Amino acid sequence: MADNNRVARLAERPVGMVKADNFTISDEPLPEPGDGEFRVHVEYVSIDPAMRPWLNDVPSYIPAVQIGEVMRGLGSGVIEASNHPDFAVGDAVGGLFGVQTHAISNGKGVTKLDLSLAPLERWIGGLGMPGMTAYFGLLDVGRPKEGETVVVSAASGAVGSLVGQIAKIKGCRVVGIAGGAEKCKAVTDMGFDVCVDYKAGNLAEDLRAACPKGIDIYWENVGGEIGDTVFPQMNQFGRVVVCGLISMYNATKPPTGPINLGFILRSRLRVQGFIVFDYTDRYQEAIDDMGKWVADGKLVMREDVRDGGVDAFVDVLNLLYTGGNNGKLVLKT
Amino acid sequence: MADNNRVARLAERPVGMVKADNFTISDEPLPEPGDGEFRVHVEYVSIDPAMRPWLNDVPSYIPAVQIGEVMRGLGSGVIEASNHPDFAVGDAVGGLFGVQTHAISNGKGVTKLDLSLAPLERWIGGLGMPGMTAYFGLLDVGRPKEGETVVVSAASGAVGSLVGQIAKIKGCRVVGIAGGAEKCKAVTDMGFDVCVDYKAGNLAEDLRAACPKGIDIYWENVGGEIGDTVFPQMNQFGRVVVCGLISMYNATKPPTGPINLGFILRSRLRVQGFIVFDYTDRYQEAIDDMGKWVADGKLVMREDVRDGGVDAFVDVLNLLYTGGNNGKLVLKT
Repeated sequence: MADNNRVARLAERPVGMVKADNFTISDEPLPEPGDGEFRVHVEYVSIDPAMRPWLNDVPSYIPAVQIGEVMRGLGSGVIEASNHPDFAVGDAVGGLFGVQTHAISNGKGVTKLDLSLAPLERWIGGLGMPGMTAYFGLLDVGRPKEGETVVVSAASGAVGSLVGQIAKIKGCRVVGIAGGAEKCKAVTDMGFDVCVDYKAGNLAEDLRAACPKGIDIYWENVGGEIGDTVFPQMNQFGRVVVCGLISMYNATKPPTGPINLGFILRSRLRVQGFIVFDYTDRYQEAIDDMGKWVADGKLVMREDVRDGGVDAFVDVLNLLYTGGNNGKLVLKT
Repeated sequence: MADNNRVARLAERPVGMVKADNFTISDEPLPEPGDGEFRVHVEYVSIDPAMRPWLNDVPSYIPAVQIGEVMRGLGSGVIEASNHPDFAVGDAVGGLFGVQTHAISNGKGVTKLDLSLAPLERWIGGLGMPGMTAYFGLLDVGRPKEGETVVVSAASGAVGSLVGQIAKIKGCRVVGIAGGAEKCKAVTDMGFDVCVDYKAGNLAEDLRAACPKGIDIYWENVGGEIGDTVFPQMNQFGRVVVCGLISMYNATKPPTGPINLGFILRSRLRVQGFIVFDYTDRYQEAIDDMGKWVADGKLVMREDVRDGGVDAFVDVLNLLYTGGNNGKLVLKT
C-alpha cells in the first residue's frame, strides 16, 4: 500500500489550451476514511473532453472545478480501507474520484463494478461514461430508423466509435468524420460504411458523396466548421444530437460563423442538447445491451490506456485536442 | 364581374429587400376554367414573411417562385365560375391562389370557408396560416406546461400575437419582444404579462428582469441578434420553436455571430424547426379550439387589412421587414 496520495489540484484557470502550470501535482498524506466512508485506490482515470469546460468558471450543468480543488475526473479502482457498511475492502468501484491515486468517498454516486464482465479500465471506457453517452444519445435522442444515414464527427474517438457501431447494429448507413488516413482506417475497420477525412480539405463534397441520400442523424462532437458543413446536408426531419463541441472548448472568445437556424427551420431539424448524467437511472439498460453486443462480436470497445500516472495528466488531456488519441483515453495512475 | 385579371409576376430575383422592379404588375385577360376547374375572385391575399425566402432560388421546403410565374400567395375569395363538381359558384374558398385578382384552380389544396364562423380576411389571418402556425408550433413543438415562461419574438405580429395568447390560455407566463412602445402596448393589451422593447437597447437585461425564472420556451420568429440574446437565458430542457427568421430573409450574405450550440448542449435545449404545412391534416383541430377561444373572449385576432390592390403588393410586403404592420397583414385586392 502506498504511503502518499499523488494528486492534481487546479492552481489557476487555463486560458485556451491547458498548460502544466495550471495544475499543482504533489504528494499528500494518504487520506483516512471517516465513519461511513471508504478509501479507493484509483487505478484508472478517464480523460474526457468535458474536463476542459469543467475548468471554466461559467454556469453549466455541473459547477466549475474551484482553484485548489482536486481535478474532477471519473475513475475506477479497488477499495483498500472501509468504514462503510455497504462497501468492503477489495470491492471494485467506479465514480467521480478525481485525478489522484487515492480518494475518500461516502459511496454517493459510486457504482460497484463486475470485473467478471469487463476489466477496470473498460468500466470507465466502453461501459462507462462514453458508452452510456453513445447509447442513450443515439437511441433516445437521435432515434435512428433502419436505413437512415447517420454521420458521426470525431468518429475515431471514445464516444464516436461506439455511436457508429451502435448505429450499424440498428441497420443504418454510417459515415464517420475523422482527421487523417490512419484514423479513418480505424473507423472503417470498426465497421463504419465510409470515413471522410476532414483534413483532406473537401469535407462538403466528400460528405455529399458519402451520403447520397442526405443525412438523417448528425452526431455533433465537434462544432465549429465541421458542424457548419454538415447542417446544410441534413434531410428534412433530421436530428442533430449535440453531445460535444470539442473544437470550441479551448476557445478564448465566442466562435463566430454562419448560424445554422435557417437550415433548422427549412428542414424541420430537431437539434437537441444532451448530457449523459440525465440518464444515470437507466445505465443498466445500456450495460446489458452493450455487454451482449460485445459478447456477440458486434461491438468493439477500444481503450487507449496511457502510463505516466497523475503527473502525465495535462499531457494526456491535451491529446484529445490535438487528435493524438486512438479510442477512449484512459490514464493509468 | 371584372374584365381583366390584375396579376403580379416575378420579373427578376430580388437582392436584399424586394423592390417594385422585381415584379411586373399588369392586366391579363380573365382566365377561363377548363374541365374540372373553377375561377375564384380573390378578395384578400395574405402577406407573409415567408414570401421573401420563396423568391430565393435555393432548395427549401417548397420550390422557389420562378421568373415569369405569378407570385405565390395564400388568398381567400368567392368562386365566380365553375366546371368542378365539388365547387359551386358562390362558394367561399381559401388556397394558394397567388397575388392576383382572379385564379383558376382544380380544387387541390383548396378549403371551403364557413363565412358564418369568420369573414374572408380572417380565414387567411387568425384562422389561416398564422393561426395554424401558432397553434401547432406552440402546442405540438413547444409543448408548454402550466407555469412555464414563454418568450415570443415579433410578439405584435400575426403569429406572435396568437402564440402569446394561446400560451396564456395554457397557463404560462408570457413575455413578448417587440420594437417600440406602441407595439409593446399592443402586446400587453393582448394579455401578455410583459413586453420587452428591443429598440430600448437593453434586451439582455430587460429580458432577464422580465423572466425571473428563466425561459422555458422561446418562439423564434426573428433570428439574428435577438435569438443570440435569448438562447443564453434558456432554462435546462428548454425548447426553441424555430418558426421564422425574419431578420435574415433580406440578407445578402450568411449572417455571422456567436453560434448557440454551447447553450443547446449545456442546457439540453431542444431546438426544432417547424413548417405549418406539415400539419394540414390537423387544421380542423386548431380551427375548432381557436374558434371556441375567440367566441369565449379568450383570444383576440387582429387583421391589418391594407388597400391598394395587387399594385400595392411590394409596398405592403415590405411593411413586414420595416415593422410597419400591426397584426396579421392582409392585402385587399
